[in-house]
Amino acid sequence: MIQASICTIGDEILIGQIVDTNSSNISKELEALGIKVTRMLSFGDDHDEIVNNLSNELRNNDIVISTGGLGPTKDDITKAALAEISGSKEYVVNKAQLKIVNEILHSRGLDVLDINKAQANVPDTCEVINNKKGTAPIMVFRFPAEKFGHPATLYALPGVPFEAIGALPDIIDDIKCHQKGLSDIFHKCIMVYGLAESALSKLIEDWEDSLPEDMHLAYLSNQLTGVRLRLSIYGGNKEDEERRIDAEFERLRPLLGDMIYSWQDDTLQNAIGAIFRGSGMTLSCAESCTGGEIAHLITSVPGASEYFLGSVTSYAVPIKEKLLKVRAGTIKKFGVVSSEVAVEMATGVRRLLGSTYSVATTGLAGPSGDEQNPVGTVWIGIAGPNGTYSVKKNYRNDRARNIQRFAASALDELRKYILRDLQMNMSSKRPAQH
Amino acid sequence: MIQASICTIGDEILIGQIVDTNSSNISKELEALGIKVTRMLSFGDDHDEIVNNLSNELRNNDIVISTGGLGPTKDDITKAALAEISGSKEYVVNKAQLKIVNEILHSRGLDVLDINKAQANVPDTCEVINNKKGTAPIMVFRFPAEKFGHPATLYALPGVPFEAIGALPDIIDDIKCHQKGLSDIFHKCIMVYGLAESALSKLIEDWEDSLPEDMHLAYLSNQLTGVRLRLSIYGGNKEDEERRIDAEFERLRPLLGDMIYSWQDDTLQNAIGAIFRGSGMTLSCAESCTGGEIAHLITSVPGASEYFLGSVTSYAVPIKEKLLKVRAGTIKKFGVVSSEVAVEMATGVRRLLGSTYSVATTGLAGPSGDEQNPVGTVWIGIAGPNGTYSVKKNYRNDRARNIQRFAASALDELRKYILRDLQMNMSSKRPAQH
Repeated sequence: MIQASICTIGDEILIGQIVDTNSSNISKELEALGIKVTRMLSFGDDHDEIVNNLSNELRNNDIVISTGGLGPTKDDITKAALAEISGSKEYVVNKAQLKIVNEILHSRGLDVLDINKAQANVPDTCEVINNKKGTAPIMVFRFPAEKFGHPATLYALPGVPFEAIGALPDIIDDIKCHQKGLSDIFHKCIMVYGLAESALSKLIEDWEDSLPEDMHLAYLSNQLTGVRLRLSIYGGNKEDEERRIDAEFERLRPLLGDMIYSWQDDTLQNAIGAIFRGSGMTLSCAESCTGGEIAHLITSVPGASEYFLGSVTSYAVPIKEKLLKVRAGTIKKFGVVSSEVAVEMATGVRRLLGSTYSVATTGLAGPSGDEQNPVGTVWIGIAGPNGTYSVKKNYRNDRARNIQRFAASALDELRKYILRDLQMNMSSKRPAQH
Repeated sequence: MIQASICTIGDEILIGQIVDTNSSNISKELEALGIKVTRMLSFGDDHDEIVNNLSNELRNNDIVISTGGLGPTKDDITKAALAEISGSKEYVVNKAQLKIVNEILHSRGLDVLDINKAQANVPDTCEVINNKKGTAPIMVFRFPAEKFGHPATLYALPGVPFEAIGALPDIIDDIKCHQKGLSDIFHKCIMVYGLAESALSKLIEDWEDSLPEDMHLAYLSNQLTGVRLRLSIYGGNKEDEERRIDAEFERLRPLLGDMIYSWQDDTLQNAIGAIFRGSGMTLSCAESCTGGEIAHLITSVPGASEYFLGSVTSYAVPIKEKLLKVRAGTIKKFGVVSSEVAVEMATGVRRLLGSTYSVATTGLAGPSGDEQNPVGTVWIGIAGPNGTYSVKKNYRNDRARNIQRFAASALDELRKYILRDLQMNMSSKRPAQH
C-alpha cells in the first residue's frame, strides 16, 4: 500500500495559536485514493528542523505533503530548506504564478511589493502547480529512488486552509497521474441528522454486522451536518460497487426513515435548497438565540435568493413585539423561551415577509440560563400554509456550539416538516383524482 | 530551554475523521510555562508505531504528552506499548480510578462491565493522576537519565478533548513541581484590521528591524479577525517584559492609527462590544449579501443582548423596499449594489428597530456578479445620530470567504465610524466647556 505523511510547518501551530485543519482534510482525500497516511507531523519555521523532518518523512513514505511556511513574510526559510533537500542551486521565476500574484493584488487595489513578487520564485528543482486562490505557488519535488531508497514525491502547499484545500484537487490529480500501484477505491455517503453517533451505531448494529466483508463503514460526526455514514470498497469495478453500496444503504431506510436527509455527502442547508429550488415556494426566518446563523447557513448556498426572502433577528424583546407581532401577553404568560413565542415568531415573520414557510428560534445559548430553562434550551417554531408546529430541544454545550446546534436542528425540523406537509398534501389530493 | 513533544495516538486522526484540537490546547499551556514545543506528531493504534514514536520523542525531548489510544475498546494496545517502553512486568489496579469508573457508569445508569473495570489497571511503572471527567486514568512515567540520555517524563492522557483538557491543570501542576529550570516567557498581542499581511509587514518594516534582539515578532492572519501581531520575550522578569513590550507596541500607534482595534488578542465583534457595553447606545443591522453573518458575529459575544437590538436580512428586493423603506427609485437609478441603497438600508433598519447606530451591506458574494459589479463587490452603509457613511470594498474570493470578508469589513468600518463620531462629538463639545 502506498504510504504518505502529512507535515505542517509553522511556529503558530506549535504554540497552539491555530488548530491544524489542513492535515485532516488532506488525509481524507488520500484515504479516498486508498493511500495510507502513516503519520502527521508539525514542526517549526527553522531551517534544520524543516530539512531533517521532511527528509526523514521522505525516507519512510512514498508521498509527503507539507502545508505552511510559505507566505510573503516567511517564504525564505522554507524555500531555502526545500532547495537544500532537493539540491537546488538557484531560484527561477514562475511566470504563471507571478501573473496570479499581480492579478490578486491588483484586484484588491494593492501595490505589488518586492516581497509579493518574490513569492513566484521557486527552486529550479521543482515543478509548480499554480495556486489560483493565493500568491504562494505549490511546489512539487520528485526524488529518484537513489535519494531516499525509493521514489518519493514532496508536495509543498501554503498553510492558509482556503488555499491548501483549494489546491487539493490538483494535487490529487497529480498523484493519480504519477503514482504507480494506486488501488481503486469506491465510496458513497449518506447523511443522517437527529441521532448521536453512539446512538446511531447502536441502532444500526445488526445492519453493520451483516455488511459484506469487503465493505468498510466509517462514521463522521459534525454538529452542523449530523452524522455522515460512508461505505467504501477497495478494488473491483465501479458500477458494480456503486450498485452494491446503494443496496446496503437502501436497507437503512426502514430503520432511519426521514433522519436520512441526503443520499450523498451533503449539508442540511443544501437539502433545504433542494426542496425549495424550482418549487415556487419561498422561505423566511425569525431568529433570536441563533442571532443570524440560520439565515447565514441558508444563504451560504449559491442561488438561495431564488427561494429565501429574508429574515429578522429579533434579539431584543420589543423587536419581537413590534416587528414580528409576538403578543406581549404571550411573552408574559409563557416566557420568551416557549413554544407559543416560537410559533408567534414564525407566524409573524411569515406574514411580514410573505413567504410560503418560515422557521423561528427562541432559546438560551449561554453563558447563562433563566429560571425555567437551563442553558442549551431552544424552542423551534415553524409556520406554513397548512398550520404551525413547534418542538423543544436541549443541548449541553458552550455558547458557540449551542448556537450551531440550534441552527442545524431548526433546519432539520423545517426540512422534515415541509416533507411531511407536501406528502400529506399529495395524499389528501389523491382521492379527489379518482 | 525545556523541550516538549505532543503526540496523538489514533487511526481516527490519521484518516481525517477527526481534527486534533488537543495538541493546540496543550501547547498553549506549555508555551505559557516557557516550554518549547518542538514537534506535534500523530500516529496509529499499532504497538510498534507507539513504542517507536514515543521512544524517539522521549530521546529528543524533556517532556512528552500523548493523548488518545486509551478507552474501553482500545486500552490494550497503548497500555502494552507503555508497559514495554517503561519495562513494566505487571499491571496494578488503581483503586481511586476504579471508584471513579464505578461512579461515572452508575450515574449514567450503565452496568460496570469487565472492560470498564480494566480501565483502572495500569503498568506498575507509572504514577496515576486521576481523570475526574472520564474512565481512563492519566499515566505518568518518569524515566531516569540512563534511559534516554537525559531525564524525561511521559504523560499519557485520554483522547476525548473534554477529558484531556479537563486533566490539563493537574498535568501543568505536576510539571511545575517536577521540572527543573522552567524559564519565564511573556507574550502580548495587538490586533490590526484593514491591511494584508504583506502590506502590514512592509509598513512596519523599520519598526520590526529596530526591535530588541530578545523580542520575537509573529504574524497571524485570519479573514474574520485581521492580522494579530505578537511580541514574545523568553526569560527575565514579568513586569519588566510587559512594560518593554507595551513600549514597543506603543511606537506602532502613529504608523497604524485606528487600524489597531485591540491591544490584546481579540476579535472585531468583541471590539464592537467593548464600545457599546455600558454606553447606553444600541446597534442594529440590515444584511443582504452577508445573509445573517454580521448578526451572527455580533451575537457570538456573550451579553450582546445589552446593545444589539436585532437585524433584518433583506435577501429579496421587495423586502428591502417594504421593510427597510429603500425607495424603488433608488434601486432603479443606482442599482441594488450601490452606495445609495447601502445607506438607505442602514437608515431604514435604524429607524425600524430604533437603534443608535446601524450597519448595512449590499453586494455580490458570488458565484456570479452583475453588469456593473464583479463578484466580491460590497457596499457598506452606516447610519448614526450624526449622519450616514458608506464605503465600497472589493475582494476576490469564493462565496463563503467573500461573505466572511464582507462581514468583518462591515464590523471594522462600523467600529472606526463610531470611534470617529464619538471623538468629534467630544471635541465639538469641548470648546463649550471653556
